Amino acid sequence: MLLQTIEQALAQVPYPTRPEGLYEPIEYVLSMGGKRLRPTLLLLAHGLYGGQPEAALPAAVGIETYHNHTLLHDDLMDRADMRRGKPTVHKKWNDNTAVLSGDTMLIMAFRHIMDCPCRRQADVLRLFARSAQEICEGQQYDVNFESRTDVTEAEYIEMIRLKTSVLLGCAVQMGALIADAPDADCDALYRFAEKVGLAFQLQDDYLDVYGDPKVFGKKIGGDILCGKKTFLLINALNRADADTRSRLLQLLADSGCEPEAKIQAVTDLYNRLDIPALTLEAIDRYYAEARTELQALSLPQEQWQPLWDYACSLLGRNK
Amino acid sequence: MLLQTIEQALAQVPYPTRPEGLYEPIEYVLSMGGKRLRPTLLLLAHGLYGGQPEAALPAAVGIETYHNHTLLHDDLMDRADMRRGKPTVHKKWNDNTAVLSGDTMLIMAFRHIMDCPCRRQADVLRLFARSAQEICEGQQYDVNFESRTDVTEAEYIEMIRLKTSVLLGCAVQMGALIADAPDADCDALYRFAEKVGLAFQLQDDYLDVYGDPKVFGKKIGGDILCGKKTFLLINALNRADADTRSRLLQLLADSGCEPEAKIQAVTDLYNRLDIPALTLEAIDRYYAEARTELQALSLPQEQWQPLWDYACSLLGRNK
Repeated sequence: MLLQTIEQALAQVPYPTRPEGLYEPIEYVLSMGGKRLRPTLLLLAHGLYGGQPEAALPAAVGIETYHNHTLLHDDLMDRADMRRGKPTVHKKWNDNTAVLSGDTMLIMAFRHIMDCPCRRQADVLRLFARSAQEICEGQQYDVNFESRTDVTEAEYIEMIRLKTSVLLGCAVQMGALIADAPDADCDALYRFAEKVGLAFQLQDDYLDVYGDPKVFGKKIGGDILCGKKTFLLINALNRADADTRSRLLQLLADSGCEPEAKIQAVTDLYNRLDIPALTLEAIDRYYAEARTELQALSLPQEQWQPLWDYACSLLGRNK
Repeated sequence: MLLQTIEQALAQVPYPTRPEGLYEPIEYVLSMGGKRLRPTLLLLAHGLYGGQPEAALPAAVGIETYHNHTLLHDDLMDRADMRRGKPTVHKKWNDNTAVLSGDTMLIMAFRHIMDCPCRRQADVLRLFARSAQEICEGQQYDVNFESRTDVTEAEYIEMIRLKTSVLLGCAVQMGALIADAPDADCDALYRFAEKVGLAFQLQDDYLDVYGDPKVFGKKIGGDILCGKKTFLLINALNRADADTRSRLLQLLADSGCEPEAKIQAVTDLYNRLDIPALTLEAIDRYYAEARTELQALSLPQEQWQPLWDYACSLLGRNK
């Protein structure tokens, strides 16, 4: 239901027709579909306080436009060729188009959010701008971590908080602010989404190694093959003795090794270091903390239950 | 005086110290100096209506931060190695840093402008966001024109209006809005700066061919050598007969030709087609139109004279 409303609103954004080279890539990116997670969270939080979806739709469109701006520029920086089964903008057009159309999406995101008149608009805009800047910081830390082997768990958690959680927190708090929710609820909702984001990212790290390929949708072991600093790898590096640690680093650096053999060897090491249990515990902890935040809301449980159900569905859980 | 205030405010922006890779390039770019034309125009317009500089300084810092964001991303797209005698960000760091630090500057520009509380803040933000989007459109048209030989004068004027004038218009209108100036004055100031921007850009095109190298600061003929679509070239292409037109296109495409000889041959063609007189007339016209806009303000001439003097100094004129 909400998803349909969001897709409709995204499809109805009146893009200027010219210059085509600027706006075609934007429409291309925004019509690719996806879960529309952030606008859905925004509208759900908004609905908790009696807001009608229409009143928050421009902000929902804005946050999805913003999210797709980050994907466009991240794909350019990562030289990723495909996104959602289609060529990325710098592949289909070129690098300069990715820069400029991406910039335009960031500006359009601000404009959409400005089109959402409400008593607390200044707070909404400040929240959005602060969040967007934090997300840039998260991306920069992610880049920095690529060339480091001494990243701590705390540093990793802070990076994914900035890169992933902050925008989920921004989405729910924005929805609540637009519906003029009490301050304490706005803050609790932000922390709720922050924890959901952390659980979600750690689960993504976990499933990349231990997931069912049919359910996960991606090939298993991708993070291992590209040597990505995940929660699993960082904890393995920090918990291994000197010998195991250097063996793990050697394995990851060995480009001659067969992919399947490398994935198996690294997974064996993870298993021996108890990394899966450690990761599942962390996911459970963030999941439980997220629920505690909802319990602190000024609303009865039957009202926030749909928001919790949605978070659970994201995490593939049934409670 | 104003310049000193602006430099001080730019130097006092409290950048987060981490992640260094994100904020160092931003401080680097913003500490390079320059005329600080846009924040100066903003503060001058603000002062016309009794505003004290401090009240508009965050917006002045915001518009200069925004302008430098466009320079950073434009230099990346143009693969320009130097800016103000120093290596550009993508040369000193790398392309990804230019993308991400540039994005952060755009966000910080919005945040600075939000830090300027005033009665008409919503109008200020809307003006800024619309202008920023128009500037992206201008950049896209500029790119499109590179591969075309049939650009009309009207298309060229619209492109430089978007790419250059809009931000000058935004600067003065923003200053006036922050000082709560009458609507008619806000609009007249916008048009004034738009015309100044057009005159300024055409003069830049003119001086690139006919300027005194000692005064102009750049080598003469640079636009001719890189085949840039300037007001001069576009009018020459449109006014030449078929033979002259194809000779001009051949000349520009000939990479074997000696630079000095190419500049001389193109300049001779311009002279024969009366392009210098045509260009100077257009500059004079925009210059006069700009003054007419100031005369329509609700203020006596002695009040707007300093703003006019500043515009004249930009254009190297003495009246």
